[in-house]
Amino acid sequence: MIVEMRNGAPKDEIDAVTDKARSLGLNVQLNLGTDKVVVALLGSNTGLIPTDQFAVLPGVESVTRIMKPYKLASREFKRADTIVSVGGIDIGTNRIVIMAGPCAVESEEQLTEAARVVKTSGASILRGGAFKPRTSPFSFQGLKKSGLELLDKTRKSFGLPVITEVVDAHDVDMMSDYVDILQVGSRNMQNYSLLTHLGKTRRPVLLKRGFACTITEWLTAADYLLSEGNEQVILCERGIRTFEDSTRFSLDISSIPVIKKASHLPLVVDPSHAAGHYSLVPALAKAAIAAGADGLLIEMHPDPRKALVDGIQSLSPSDFIRLMEELKPVAAAVGRTL
Amino acid sequence: MIVEMRNGAPKDEIDAVTDKARSLGLNVQLNLGTDKVVVALLGSNTGLIPTDQFAVLPGVESVTRIMKPYKLASREFKRADTIVSVGGIDIGTNRIVIMAGPCAVESEEQLTEAARVVKTSGASILRGGAFKPRTSPFSFQGLKKSGLELLDKTRKSFGLPVITEVVDAHDVDMMSDYVDILQVGSRNMQNYSLLTHLGKTRRPVLLKRGFACTITEWLTAADYLLSEGNEQVILCERGIRTFEDSTRFSLDISSIPVIKKASHLPLVVDPSHAAGHYSLVPALAKAAIAAGADGLLIEMHPDPRKALVDGIQSLSPSDFIRLMEELKPVAAAVGRTL
Amino acid sequence: MIVEMRNGAPKDEIDAVTDKARSLGLNVQLNLGTDKVVVALLGSNTGLIPTDQFAVLPGVESVTRIMKPYKLASREFKRADTIVSVGGIDIGTNRIVIMAGPCAVESEEQLTEAARVVKTSGASILRGGAFKPRTSPFSFQGLKKSGLELLDKTRKSFGLPVITEVVDAHDVDMMSDYVDILQVGSRNMQNYSLLTHLGKTRRPVLLKRGFACTITEWLTAADYLLSEGNEQVILCERGIRTFEDSTRFSLDISSIPVIKKASHLPLVVDPSHAAGHYSLVPALAKAAIAAGADGLLIEMHPDPRKALVDGIQSLSPSDFIRLMEELKPVAAAVGRTL
Amino acid sequence: MIVEMRNGAPKDEIDAVTDKARSLGLNVQLNLGTDKVVVALLGSNTGLIPTDQFAVLPGVESVTRIMKPYKLASREFKRADTIVSVGGIDIGTNRIVIMAGPCAVESEEQLTEAARVVKTSGASILRGGAFKPRTSPFSFQGLKKSGLELLDKTRKSFGLPVITEVVDAHDVDMMSDYVDILQVGSRNMQNYSLLTHLGKTRRPVLLKRGFACTITEWLTAADYLLSEGNEQVILCERGIRTFEDSTRFSLDISSIPVIKKASHLPLVVDPSHAAGHYSLVPALAKAAIAAGADGLLIEMHPDPRKALVDGIQSLSPSDFIRLMEELKPVAAAVGRTL
Repeated sequence: MIVEMRNGAPKDEIDAVTDKARSLGLNVQLNLGTDKVVVALLGSNTGLIPTDQFAVLPGVESVTRIMKPYKLASREFKRADTIVSVGGIDIGTNRIVIMAGPCAVESEEQLTEAARVVKTSGASILRGGAFKPRTSPFSFQGLKKSGLELLDKTRKSFGLPVITEVVDAHDVDMMSDYVDILQVGSRNMQNYSLLTHLGKTRRPVLLKRGFACTITEWLTAADYLLSEGNEQVILCERGIRTFEDSTRFSLDISSIPVIKKASHLPLVVDPSHAAGHYSLVPALAKAAIAAGADGLLIEMHPDPRKALVDGIQSLSPSDFIRLMEELKPVAAAVGRTL
Repeated sequence: MIVEMRNGAPKDEIDAVTDKARSLGLNVQLNLGTDKVVVALLGSNTGLIPTDQFAVLPGVESVTRIMKPYKLASREFKRADTIVSVGGIDIGTNRIVIMAGPCAVESEEQLTEAARVVKTSGASILRGGAFKPRTSPFSFQGLKKSGLELLDKTRKSFGLPVITEVVDAHDVDMMSDYVDILQVGSRNMQNYSLLTHLGKTRRPVLLKRGFACTITEWLTAADYLLSEGNEQVILCERGIRTFEDSTRFSLDISSIPVIKKASHLPLVVDPSHAAGHYSLVPALAKAAIAAGADGLLIEMHPDPRKALVDGIQSLSPSDFIRLMEELKPVAAAVGRTL
Repeated sequence: MIVEMRNGAPKDEIDAVTDKARSLGLNVQLNLGTDKVVVALLGSNTGLIPTDQFAVLPGVESVTRIMKPYKLASREFKRADTIVSVGGIDIGTNRIVIMAGPCAVESEEQLTEAARVVKTSGASILRGGAFKPRTSPFSFQGLKKSGLELLDKTRKSFGLPVITEVVDAHDVDMMSDYVDILQVGSRNMQNYSLLTHLGKTRRPVLLKRGFACTITEWLTAADYLLSEGNEQVILCERGIRTFEDSTRFSLDISSIPVIKKASHLPLVVDPSHAAGHYSLVPALAKAAIAAGADGLLIEMHPDPRKALVDGIQSLSPSDFIRLMEELKPVAAAVGRTL
Repeated sequence: MIVEMRNGAPKDEIDAVTDKARSLGLNVQLNLGTDKVVVALLGSNTGLIPTDQFAVLPGVESVTRIMKPYKLASREFKRADTIVSVGGIDIGTNRIVIMAGPCAVESEEQLTEAARVVKTSGASILRGGAFKPRTSPFSFQGLKKSGLELLDKTRKSFGLPVITEVVDAHDVDMMSDYVDILQVGSRNMQNYSLLTHLGKTRRPVLLKRGFACTITEWLTAADYLLSEGNEQVILCERGIRTFEDSTRFSLDISSIPVIKKASHLPLVVDPSHAAGHYSLVPALAKAAIAAGADGLLIEMHPDPRKALVDGIQSLSPSDFIRLMEELKPVAAAVGRTL
């Protein structure tokens, strides 16, 4: 941490900074001899000390953090790639994992047909929402408990692990009986009450990026899960909010190489929510794999025209099957399998 | 809702759109005779129908919503200003209401001193956090239950209503016994599980704007509270995330006149979280009142240098008392009292 | 264009809207019978009529544009892909075109070495800046005229077309003698004086996206070039400004499929300026090709450690040659050649 | 400047950094003894040294700039407020200066009527555009030379200084004969060719903030003007681009206290372009004055319904005169006059 004093700060103000630092167990290096005094605070955990502790002291002009505020999710903490295993599927290896299915579970017929397409196309995991966080209270909110039961029945029939979204901390234990991966939605990435509960379960968690959160904030949210002992964490890039309005969100493709360097956690990409339109999904899916993603989370509906939620961003079965074929050479081109 | 067909869309595609619309109880007006067929769908609730229902149909190029997706929070639904009353204080009248206090409750001494400053300066409501949603799991998370007890004790001693943040849906009932206003933080604005629980209580709720949510999304979140029967809703603008990095967030001052036109709900402004630095708070506080805000939510700490959370954005008691004096002529200049 | 009247707007206000529309040669369709009167204005050029013409009329609540404001750059105006030919190289075909070289021309040795690497690696066009728009007036501003002379000499020696940035409208004619493609930088995308001059030349123009401009604004800027008669326009996505700070800009990968659908113009991607760090360039370059870009514009410097400008985002010759090899299978995977 | 080495960087990599620093005349302080070596580079001009010079060296993980990259515009360079004088009007004093008039000069009648309203309402400076940078080439581009002649005639008739926008570097000298203040529009804030020419004139320049530029970039752009010797620089905040779509841009009200602390230059606010709708202008105008702006630039048109450009954001004469009355008590409330 670097503390810059204002021009002409007197000795007692500088002393107050160094005293504070030493009281927190930090080493101090003073840089004198120029217009400004700059104090470097050194220690192994400076990323966890709030900058405010120094910024409020008199004579301090700015405090700059050098260390990142996340720790357990960082590659410096754990060098080897984390692999999350679920129902015999490994996420985070050379093999790219495709998760697909409808935005919302609507009926047994719909889910069965979706599972059949997932299975036959070579995808590995079935997605489907039972609890739907909707912008408006007047929109369809999901089948809830009966949706979970359909997911459970379907995973047993098809031998496919399932992933579904959890929206309330108090549902975590109950839902763990029905599904394999618990998904934290973008709007809940900083719902720390939910994260803390999920950190205590032993189910794999897929943590979607908050649509207006930085990569640093995202990895710090992962620390909430990891610090409670749950090491089965999958990250999911799903687009960020920008000024551009031709897509629903802007897929932050750069987050893939940035995360791969900064963290050991596996990373999948959701092109469907980023794009907001099915016609853009194939291009984004290919780009994600070319850039190094470990998997994809794709919306596919047996009949998008009849979907209760997000039909416009869902692929039809035939479009999805075609995409699976098109992805294989892209995966091979970057030395991976699908 | 306006449905634009692609150039040369055949009659059966157009018919599919109009049939769908009629099945949803909408009136249809076809606009023919130009390059493109444009279909206008009319009805009193088109704001609540997902655009996807039409966007997925073949031949449809775009769907544009004219009606807003929120309803109960709109001024069209309720013309007269809503006034929220709490402990004898009315929020949303000609009198501007100031809520102030520390970011986090730290001790009885700290809270008592803060309450004393609030009381003597002419402010009306004491703020203080017992449950603190922190970006990092390694940061101070608040005194929790004992913090609530301190708030309860202090409000009784000073006759000041208190406001505090709720972070878990299952705490709503318990917390209602200790505090007067329940605050939904920015990161939870779209935590619909929490909103639904709060809609069922009869406590006033202060709904902070999500730092990356549009005004439309914010008012739609208010609909979650209102649709459950809780009409005691206060909105709070606290800055949005932009590319500008000299402030922690960018206070969206324009939201004040926009909300005052679009909604009947009272609106307060939090200049402290927006600015992220105490030295900017007075300018933003004055601007908010000049622009028409109904109140302010300000961080003030008896000794900012010792604050456990957000010290750098907290005013000292003397700075706060000076600001209260400076705000009076600004309020008067726009025809209001403080 | 859709004009929504406020609730209860009287007949004379509605008449004023329809009269105005008819005076502009538009057809009018009135949608009555609901809470609100909505007026649809129809005609082949409504995209070019300012919405203000109607928004200022009394009783008008909102005006929504359905048609896009650009025309000549749209695929509706010209269905077939535009191919820009320069020195025997076609841009916009099945073959992906790679442009590479240093950010700034620094010396004959540097440029010659860069050209040699471009040539031997199989790339097609040499880039190099002679006029550098720098954020600070105290930074290196480029070799200017002597930089152009070096570019001219080098293109003749190696038989490589060259591209360089133009920053002043009055340099357009002079520069056309020295280089093959004139580049409009991101900061000048809405410098209409410059665009108008470039529209009158017959040199190919590469139009970089303004870092905070929408795709619609970008294509409308292309209309400035096209409307003056210059059809040799190449678009270049180079990242947009967002809140994310781990990269210099956020590459808007979605712009590739969006532009391919909306426009007939060829599109290349600059991963170097988007990323701001050489280590991220390969992942973004592969993603761009996988998503459908027609080419890449890459910074490569014979010795990045000695670069006067943007060394940190420049690939070394060996990294660039390796990337060229890695791009070939990705191009093949999407059915293209390199 | 702070250079952070990666974990375990060997001595020769560290030496390369310190050698480079010393070759640039910087002092070096090494911080050893923790996981990471951190090197502080000290000198009076480190803000002007590109961080790339160090970031490209082997073993360097990150480079953080402590000093700002602007110099002449900073309050550290010049402590006293700069006052710009034009035609007897001082900008940057205790008296708030109002500039008003139509977006575009349309006719002698229009401009004369606007000037009459400006004069009688107590505003000081007449605005009007002769060269209009428009998003679409098919929109009205201004009266150009004859617009300048009308401005010149009107300023002489009414004894009002005039301000107009310059869009081409080569028009600077010519335009200086007709108008008092030359305005750089938001889209040209980083048109360095234009800035350099304006820096050489002796006319006051109003530099609008680029709608996606940080405050630091804005002040660095001001350095372009100041470094050429033109000290008559007025800054103008006019809103930034964000995700919020209920206003045309988001007025960055926080920029006012930030700039007042960081720079000695006078700052005015344009609420009209920020809001994009006349009904929001009064609230934003009051907020700007309450927050400490030195003046306002307001669009006012004798008949907004007939305006050729931006009618929807123009105040009518009666609305403008009312606003002038409403601003007086706000100015007084913050200790200023109007």
